[in-house]
Amino acid sequence: MPISGQSIIGSSQAHSQGAVFQAFDTVQGKQIEPDFHSAEPQDIERACALAQTAFDLYRATGQEARAVFLETIAQQILDIGDELILRAMAESGLPRARLEGEHGRTVGQLRLFAAVLREGSWNDARIDPALPERLPLPRVDLRLRNIAIGPVAVFGASNFPLAFSVAGGDTAAALAAGCPVVVKAHPAHPGTSELVGRAVQKAVAACNLPEGVFSLLTGVGNALGTALVQNPCIQAVGFTGSRQGGLALMQVAAARPQPIPVYAEMSSINPVYLLPAALAARVEAIAKGFADSVTLGAGQFCTNPGLVLGLAGADFDRFAQLAGAELMQRSAAAMLTTGIHAAYKQGVATLAAQDDVRQLARGVAADGYRAVPALFVTSGAAFLANPLLSAEIFGPVSLLVACASDAELLQVSEQLEGQLTVTLQMDGEDNALARRLLPVLERKAGRILANGFPTGVEVSHAMVHGGPFPATSDSRSTSVGSAAIYRFLRPVSYQNLGQDLLPAALQDANPLAIWQRRDGQLEK
Amino acid sequence: MPISGQSIIGSSQAHSQGAVFQAFDTVQGKQIEPDFHSAEPQDIERACALAQTAFDLYRATGQEARAVFLETIAQQILDIGDELILRAMAESGLPRARLEGEHGRTVGQLRLFAAVLREGSWNDARIDPALPERLPLPRVDLRLRNIAIGPVAVFGASNFPLAFSVAGGDTAAALAAGCPVVVKAHPAHPGTSELVGRAVQKAVAACNLPEGVFSLLTGVGNALGTALVQNPCIQAVGFTGSRQGGLALMQVAAARPQPIPVYAEMSSINPVYLLPAALAARVEAIAKGFADSVTLGAGQFCTNPGLVLGLAGADFDRFAQLAGAELMQRSAAAMLTTGIHAAYKQGVATLAAQDDVRQLARGVAADGYRAVPALFVTSGAAFLANPLLSAEIFGPVSLLVACASDAELLQVSEQLEGQLTVTLQMDGEDNALARRLLPVLERKAGRILANGFPTGVEVSHAMVHGGPFPATSDSRSTSVGSAAIYRFLRPVSYQNLGQDLLPAALQDANPLAIWQRRDGQLEK
Repeated sequence: MPISGQSIIGSSQAHSQGAVFQAFDTVQGKQIEPDFHSAEPQDIERACALAQTAFDLYRATGQEARAVFLETIAQQILDIGDELILRAMAESGLPRARLEGEHGRTVGQLRLFAAVLREGSWNDARIDPALPERLPLPRVDLRLRNIAIGPVAVFGASNFPLAFSVAGGDTAAALAAGCPVVVKAHPAHPGTSELVGRAVQKAVAACNLPEGVFSLLTGVGNALGTALVQNPCIQAVGFTGSRQGGLALMQVAAARPQPIPVYAEMSSINPVYLLPAALAARVEAIAKGFADSVTLGAGQFCTNPGLVLGLAGADFDRFAQLAGAELMQRSAAAMLTTGIHAAYKQGVATLAAQDDVRQLARGVAADGYRAVPALFVTSGAAFLANPLLSAEIFGPVSLLVACASDAELLQVSEQLEGQLTVTLQMDGEDNALARRLLPVLERKAGRILANGFPTGVEVSHAMVHGGPFPATSDSRSTSVGSAAIYRFLRPVSYQNLGQDLLPAALQDANPLAIWQRRDGQLEK
Repeated sequence: MPISGQSIIGSSQAHSQGAVFQAFDTVQGKQIEPDFHSAEPQDIERACALAQTAFDLYRATGQEARAVFLETIAQQILDIGDELILRAMAESGLPRARLEGEHGRTVGQLRLFAAVLREGSWNDARIDPALPERLPLPRVDLRLRNIAIGPVAVFGASNFPLAFSVAGGDTAAALAAGCPVVVKAHPAHPGTSELVGRAVQKAVAACNLPEGVFSLLTGVGNALGTALVQNPCIQAVGFTGSRQGGLALMQVAAARPQPIPVYAEMSSINPVYLLPAALAARVEAIAKGFADSVTLGAGQFCTNPGLVLGLAGADFDRFAQLAGAELMQRSAAAMLTTGIHAAYKQGVATLAAQDDVRQLARGVAADGYRAVPALFVTSGAAFLANPLLSAEIFGPVSLLVACASDAELLQVSEQLEGQLTVTLQMDGEDNALARRLLPVLERKAGRILANGFPTGVEVSHAMVHGGPFPATSDSRSTSVGSAAIYRFLRPVSYQNLGQDLLPAALQDANPLAIWQRRDGQLEK
């Protein structure tokens, strides 16, 4: 079935006459067929109303049924075959190997959430049995479990057309939690979105779930997303994108008659600390690893290392020289969209024009929409004085900051905004300085790495892809890994409800065989 | 030491020349000595700066040290002796027995959080060991734990001068999490607040903690609270009070350059459902229990049953008659403040003036600031048509709604705003109707009771004192019970950090002997 260019509303296809747009191939520099038609207000209304109708039925399915559903989505995505990779390559400019990896990750995280559902701790089942003899007052029987928060609006991210888009991490977590999902497709990869959306639609039908469990709205412009977040059926929002976009959605959500949580992953420059012993011992390896990380995927990762902090001196100068030379050897890769390419060029030009910022390396000017890697250096004092130097530039560029002393390094650290990650390049002799930095860094970031580089986000149980504002809108959460399910749950307590009316997770017989916390102690 | 009338800033006392006010005894109808001086901007600044300075030191203390600190606070509160009860009686108008019970609850919840700390699950320790041989890519070592979110602003509640005030549930949960606390005392009980504040101050000193772990700001007017929430050191807010007050703080927090979470417990009318079999079997007992619940503490509970839903008919009429008669026998008790008393009279008058609302019972007019219990009845159709009938009236009043059918009862349920509680009066034969209602009620409330009445909130592990907006600002949380600690935590992930730098909760040797989730499976 060819790509229709229409939104998916439950089990049917929209027939929108809304604004027409096409995807754009930044490698070939040309539009891609077919036309897409932006969802109209009635499409949004219908998708949200269907989600609301489906909600109670869907969340009542239980954890095994939802696990099977997630696995069915994974299989349906696999069944699309190479058409999906080819379409995603054309729409994103990303190479085959990267998209095949992302494809595996997308399928893998759906299966991870199936396993999380079956393990059952997501219920947070708690039982405080009645104490009828307690004095001065008897205790009632109290039992707590988590339930789904309600229909969730998910915004596909431009830079992960599979793993953080239609059936990506936000959708997988929300569906696992028992929330119907209405996705707003990113207009940069509408065909990829439709292919994956259809796979989810097929899985809904195959699992005999109510059609409103999933809809996919396609479109350009901000009005669609705003209307989606304003819709009273929507109870939470998942978003990965720009700071400006995330802030706008936060404001829309806070201004609703009933405010709702927004999980926006927005902006991070992911500082890398070059501690002295590590730098002295292995400056070449660090410079090479850094250059690989900053240019990976044309620098279009939320965890791209956009800032490097160290102590001024010969080793730091050597790093600057080596990293610059490495960067000059990296080829310029096509960016995701023409808009991202334009913003990157503008961002680099602005950085280059700042006082006390010196260019270390800048690749040869490239044609089309390719991103030329660049590296700059400044002093700790200049960094402290100029807030513009902390702004995220999405692409393969980084700023080195040479601090005059440990004290200045700590001062710069205190001034940092919230981050997704911070990285310490450190050897054993750096432990003392690392110990001074760690309390600060814990306040600043969601993930702290020793050695390695921040690009590459494992999808597992102990991952935090989150962090203090403006890295995200809600530092209490992660958007990657199994803990992401908690974003879409809320606790409900049942007092003296009979065993026959209690949910399975809270029955004394424990038919789900899950962990239950009884009088505060975990048991199974 | 006599009550000073000044704020407590860390280890010292403010010397504010701010606006002067006194507490008011609503039973005696007179002002209470001494004068209190509102905190000035420099007091707020200093309290917040001290909290920020204390933060890293305090959160590094570890769970055993913080458990001892909470227990020390409990002991210091006990050591105040009867002076505390007497002062709280005068400032709140509440009787001795109630305040002695609340006193025990306050001490008990501090000790509960000490136990929660020692049990250690609050860390959410997760370990995904490295898989160096994994293909296509090796897996890094990843470990996750929760850390404190930062200094917390706590707003004392008027209706729980001990258990939800200076050292109440919000403060206990935040201190347990590792967050310094700056309390804004409720101006209705400033002397009680100072006495308890001094007890906490003594505990800070006795435990050799940094002074900024706790400050207490006293004052009248909204400017103090606004400035506190705007202060950049504050990272979360706990509030129990009016819808208007909670909404105002939510807006202040969302408008900050760095938005922060607000946990506001605001408004709930706590519907009680009278299902037919239960009503037929034991209408007298239900009417008596209801009258007790609605008049308890002069109706000044967040969980006061302000709405009663049932099916029109002889049994419902009988309930209305019996409940009205019971209510007429309840004496009018003094309210907490003159303002609450005035708002109660106004609320009852507004309700009485609505079309299709009939008065069933109204106690004899009382002198002073005593609340006259009242009971009204309306139809399901009238309730659906008039949003004013859902407004919370803080005090001993309730509205009965006679629905024409099961369908109308469900329709009314769907239209309800978010609630802290809903209660089903039900017997076995009501199960079928209860099953239809439960999915709706789970979406509407944080706690669902079978039989019993919603007043009386157990402080335990399975309690949820929370619920969808406007019951609270954040349905993902509870403000009572051990799960309340999670409001003030955020996850941090550590990648490839050495054992010597890892926090104790994440070390392989597990020195805290807590539950750790290894590769997704809990073990100890």
